[in-house]
Amino acid sequence: MTTALRDLGLSTGKKARLHRILYQHGSRNGTALFLPYDQGLEHGPRDFFANPSAGSPSYILRLAVEGGFNGIAVQIGLAEKFYWEYAGEVPLILKLNGKTDIPSDEAALSPLNAQVEEAVRLGADAVGYTLYVGTPAQDRDLEQYLSVRRAAQRLGMPLIVWAYPRGAAIEAKGGKDSFYAVDYAARVASELGADIVKVNFPHPEKRDGVKKPYEGTFTSQEAIDGVVRSANRTLVLISGGEKAGDEAMLDKARQSMQAGATGLIFGRNIWQREHGESLKFAARLREVLDEHPR
Amino acid sequence: MTTALRDLGLSTGKKARLHRILYQHGSRNGTALFLPYDQGLEHGPRDFFANPSAGSPSYILRLAVEGGFNGIAVQIGLAEKFYWEYAGEVPLILKLNGKTDIPSDEAALSPLNAQVEEAVRLGADAVGYTLYVGTPAQDRDLEQYLSVRRAAQRLGMPLIVWAYPRGAAIEAKGGKDSFYAVDYAARVASELGADIVKVNFPHPEKRDGVKKPYEGTFTSQEAIDGVVRSANRTLVLISGGEKAGDEAMLDKARQSMQAGATGLIFGRNIWQREHGESLKFAARLREVLDEHPR
Amino acid sequence: MTTALRDLGLSTGKKARLHRILYQHGSRNGTALFLPYDQGLEHGPRDFFANPSAGSPSYILRLAVEGGFNGIAVQIGLAEKFYWEYAGEVPLILKLNGKTDIPSDEAALSPLNAQVEEAVRLGADAVGYTLYVGTPAQDRDLEQYLSVRRAAQRLGMPLIVWAYPRGAAIEAKGGKDSFYAVDYAARVASELGADIVKVNFPHPEKRDGVKKPYEGTFTSQEAIDGVVRSANRTLVLISGGEKAGDEAMLDKARQSMQAGATGLIFGRNIWQREHGESLKFAARLREVLDEHPR
Amino acid sequence: MTTALRDLGLSTGKKARLHRILYQHGSRNGTALFLPYDQGLEHGPRDFFANPSAGSPSYILRLAVEGGFNGIAVQIGLAEKFYWEYAGEVPLILKLNGKTDIPSDEAALSPLNAQVEEAVRLGADAVGYTLYVGTPAQDRDLEQYLSVRRAAQRLGMPLIVWAYPRGAAIEAKGGKDSFYAVDYAARVASELGADIVKVNFPHPEKRDGVKKPYEGTFTSQEAIDGVVRSANRTLVLISGGEKAGDEAMLDKARQSMQAGATGLIFGRNIWQREHGESLKFAARLREVLDEHPR
Amino acid sequence: MTTALRDLGLSTGKKARLHRILYQHGSRNGTALFLPYDQGLEHGPRDFFANPSAGSPSYILRLAVEGGFNGIAVQIGLAEKFYWEYAGEVPLILKLNGKTDIPSDEAALSPLNAQVEEAVRLGADAVGYTLYVGTPAQDRDLEQYLSVRRAAQRLGMPLIVWAYPRGAAIEAKGGKDSFYAVDYAARVASELGADIVKVNFPHPEKRDGVKKPYEGTFTSQEAIDGVVRSANRTLVLISGGEKAGDEAMLDKARQSMQAGATGLIFGRNIWQREHGESLKFAARLREVLDEHPR
Repeated sequence: MTTALRDLGLSTGKKARLHRILYQHGSRNGTALFLPYDQGLEHGPRDFFANPSAGSPSYILRLAVEGGFNGIAVQIGLAEKFYWEYAGEVPLILKLNGKTDIPSDEAALSPLNAQVEEAVRLGADAVGYTLYVGTPAQDRDLEQYLSVRRAAQRLGMPLIVWAYPRGAAIEAKGGKDSFYAVDYAARVASELGADIVKVNFPHPEKRDGVKKPYEGTFTSQEAIDGVVRSANRTLVLISGGEKAGDEAMLDKARQSMQAGATGLIFGRNIWQREHGESLKFAARLREVLDEHPR
Repeated sequence: MTTALRDLGLSTGKKARLHRILYQHGSRNGTALFLPYDQGLEHGPRDFFANPSAGSPSYILRLAVEGGFNGIAVQIGLAEKFYWEYAGEVPLILKLNGKTDIPSDEAALSPLNAQVEEAVRLGADAVGYTLYVGTPAQDRDLEQYLSVRRAAQRLGMPLIVWAYPRGAAIEAKGGKDSFYAVDYAARVASELGADIVKVNFPHPEKRDGVKKPYEGTFTSQEAIDGVVRSANRTLVLISGGEKAGDEAMLDKARQSMQAGATGLIFGRNIWQREHGESLKFAARLREVLDEHPR
Repeated sequence: MTTALRDLGLSTGKKARLHRILYQHGSRNGTALFLPYDQGLEHGPRDFFANPSAGSPSYILRLAVEGGFNGIAVQIGLAEKFYWEYAGEVPLILKLNGKTDIPSDEAALSPLNAQVEEAVRLGADAVGYTLYVGTPAQDRDLEQYLSVRRAAQRLGMPLIVWAYPRGAAIEAKGGKDSFYAVDYAARVASELGADIVKVNFPHPEKRDGVKKPYEGTFTSQEAIDGVVRSANRTLVLISGGEKAGDEAMLDKARQSMQAGATGLIFGRNIWQREHGESLKFAARLREVLDEHPR
Repeated sequence: MTTALRDLGLSTGKKARLHRILYQHGSRNGTALFLPYDQGLEHGPRDFFANPSAGSPSYILRLAVEGGFNGIAVQIGLAEKFYWEYAGEVPLILKLNGKTDIPSDEAALSPLNAQVEEAVRLGADAVGYTLYVGTPAQDRDLEQYLSVRRAAQRLGMPLIVWAYPRGAAIEAKGGKDSFYAVDYAARVASELGADIVKVNFPHPEKRDGVKKPYEGTFTSQEAIDGVVRSANRTLVLISGGEKAGDEAMLDKARQSMQAGATGLIFGRNIWQREHGESLKFAARLREVLDEHPR
Repeated sequence: MTTALRDLGLSTGKKARLHRILYQHGSRNGTALFLPYDQGLEHGPRDFFANPSAGSPSYILRLAVEGGFNGIAVQIGLAEKFYWEYAGEVPLILKLNGKTDIPSDEAALSPLNAQVEEAVRLGADAVGYTLYVGTPAQDRDLEQYLSVRRAAQRLGMPLIVWAYPRGAAIEAKGGKDSFYAVDYAARVASELGADIVKVNFPHPEKRDGVKKPYEGTFTSQEAIDGVVRSANRTLVLISGGEKAGDEAMLDKARQSMQAGATGLIFGRNIWQREHGESLKFAARLREVLDEHPR
């Protein structure tokens, strides 16, 4: 189910930038390992207590370079203040929207904090947008997303969609991590023109409240296969989520790549440990990617 | 009650594109059989479990060509990534709005995901807009619709309105499939300038809560006759809805064409079966259209 | 209390178009008899069951010409598809906003469905806007109205305001037809720059909940006199509302003209009867207008 | 505490227009007596029952000229239809926003009905904006106000703010007429760049629920002194409100001018009486102003 | 943890203006002592009862000059009417948004009252924006903030963010002054591109409801160290809040500067005392700044 860049209907600018990310960094084989670093906004500094160094954007950027990541995803403030030191050394993914986790997520919406033009100015190779699939505020989310997609298209900027099931309605239908929810989220990103979609690893065992076809028994591999299939020509990134055991994470990574995913986007599982350990774990993830050239 | 293109007050661009759809594809006699494929967004991948091949946009596009459809309706993401392989072989209807079915439909609103200009760029011959007739959010729906209608007019792009009664209020007045609801929906599309309106087949037996004039006894044929009449110079497409028995569907098709409808738009009834069966059923539907040249 | 066009502070374009309506059609004496035909949107096709021919816009347009009406008011869709057949023979009033009556009217708002520029393109001689006086959504209503008034002024297009008390608050203050409500509505239209205001005939006997000055006893004539006075230099049209007895309607017409109104706008009372009867009743109404040259 | 025009940081256009109002009309000594006439929109025609002539804008405009007022404040509709008869004879203050009093005032907001450019076109010397200080809808109110202030500044048009405490929250904190509420309102207008602020006379005896510093005992004079001081370089007008006894009104007028206010804006206290009486009372008010040259 | 201007990734215009503030006023050593004066809008005149002179903007501006402050922060109205007397003598920070404290703060939002271009016109050296971190209205807050940040960047105008945790959600999670809340607020400002962030001094002893990592025991110094670290390359100002004891305030000031903050922004603690005392206390604060050159 592997997808080569040439089959994605990309514009010249998008193809040039994705080629840079996928073939001139990291494993240089069409796969990707990304370092997301927007948790300071999404969760606050509490995510940095496990490894205080991680609170420093400089530290994280250096880690991205040393660890041979294919890109680092940050909000506009950190991009403006810190990226210039490493500009060109590691691709920048400018995350365009984001919010605190203080108020309720029942009708979640992630407001825009930056514009695609700013990504161009900063030399970014992609932009990121969080779409809360199924939120009761989907009308405003999609309206906002439309303006981002149009700008990204106009400027030849690859668009990565964080496709996150969220809100009161999906909680009542099996939760945000079910196979149903993740599968739907991947499809929505594809239907709406994402170049790359970032999803969580699906949990087919979460069945309470899901739609009928998902009530059956599926292995993890079947579930992730389905998700990648649903994304069709939208490249798939699997996110790491909260820090978990290394072997469990590596299993997920292998299953994802086996299913045809393009890569991984792991943050807390990387930088919520000591520096040397971070690099070691990144190297193990890259080994997985090395085995799955696209 | 048949309506020829010359009587519709169409601009040159709209007439040229509708002529292409109605006289250069399918039965080439002024009728139309469309294949809608936006269920991946509206319902999620669960609609593809009955026939997993149907999850692939390539498969569906090929089916549209092989089955001699007059057009295929998809969202922007699939249009961008898949249509170029079949560009020109089957007309494209770019669906401009859409949403997931995860949150409640009580105040349904279908947000814009693409713009009319994008339909022009992709070589589409029409655009589709879902109008939720009677939703408590009708003020925002109509505001959004106005911008689409104006752009379609400026660019000579035919506008197909999915006129769907929806929301808490219509549920309390006989539901979304009653003769009252469908008749009203067809008229609204006509009053608001749709070139084509897509409605569900009316159910005159649903009478609880409908307005007084609809409390009488009407046959199916009388009901569909009324709906087509209410649409006056707006061409009418009857949608298939959920998969049902073939003979029942064919009966609906015959009654619709008898009433003066321009054609059919069947999705799940086509592709939720094995490939050969899909083509066979499409052929039977086309036979009905062949008997009703416009 | 008669108002001549020269005293209204009209721009050249507005005066030219109003002159055409008031002195070159109908009684040609400064009065007007209009045929409103937006019920297909406002109420649905149910209004056409009494006389099925009335469901056809062509039939209604022909009726407007045959009956010597001063203008016909329709929504954009019907104007685009049907008016060209009778263009120039009867003045067109393009109704710019409208909605279904399916959801609740507690916070009524009538969204825009067309723009003033479209009225110009279609050769209309006036535009119509429904203002729901006193609705809890008045902030959005007035914001929308402002944009219409400004465009109408820029383009020299007369603006007719359907000034309808509506919403939960007015229901609690005597209802939408009380002398208090109608008098206030007429004044609001005048304060906000309408060229013509369309109101319902006031019911001074509805006193429960109205403001103190309206608790007194007023005759029908006193009430309609007051309403026309409140409209001052905004011309007044009295609408017919639901179909009622002919003599009662004629009485209202006479009282209105006596009070200084410019004319009448009767729809269902005209076309919810057989064709010949429609013309006969229109003729009787015109006789009233003939007696009140302005 | 008198403020001369030269100290207000006014632009040339604003100074020219205010000079015209303050030194070329009325007492011609830097004070002002204004006639507000937007009650037809704010309350409806019921305010005219006490003196039916007052329902006629022509009557009121003539009264403004005869009574030597420094300006008359009306909505756009009346300005367009009636002001040309008296253009130049009495300064026009175009009231830009306004609403009916039919729906609840719990989250009051006064929507825009006209634009500053229209005031320029009509030869107005100032514009008026009602700001509902403390309304739960203050975010939308201030957003709207910002656009007005900017336009007024761009066009050199003096901006008079009707600073009215309003909404459920202020009702729970002592009501809209307390010293606390009026003092705060005057300050808000000053902080937000009003050239002139119109406030009600404060009631220091209303203490239930007010903020602590206002729980003390203040005379009327102390309260109005405080309010004028809070407005600092924003000129202060005291409004009359509902019709009350003449001596009480004159006392308020004297205390206000003593405190440093620029003038008075009395409507119902003027025109809710017979014509000759109106002029007489206006003359008595002007006597007060004559004693307080600025 | 001191941050020099050269490391902040500032544009030329921003650097020029910040240099003026930090090195040409006050201690001229890279630190800052600001005088905020927007309480007349935020709380009303009640804040001036302790020292009535403080109600006069002229008095406060003179105090800012005499006290050697690095800048004074006011709303547009006061800036327009009063700053010209002291223009150039003390830097102006134009506060762009603000609101009354009359309605509930549960879903707090501070609406825009002025635009960045106005700051340029008035010769301001920075603009201020209040961001209510964690408010349920964060979507609208961030949307508004984005427009301000973009304009500030376009015009080279330094942007100071008042990062205030606010709203029902943070009240349920330990309140607005907890270490958790203030630390998060500082980080949010940094992530979203503030040049300077103004926060309250954190209270690590407020632990009820805070996120787990903040449940531990922290000294004041540890807390303020953490906050400054979280702000990374965004300069930090500590606000004084309500008037408190001098020694307590000086302790906070010392701890803040020790932590690497750039300075202090004290209002009520300065001007809610007699004139001479105000200057004395300002001098003591400046002594602290003198000891921490940047």
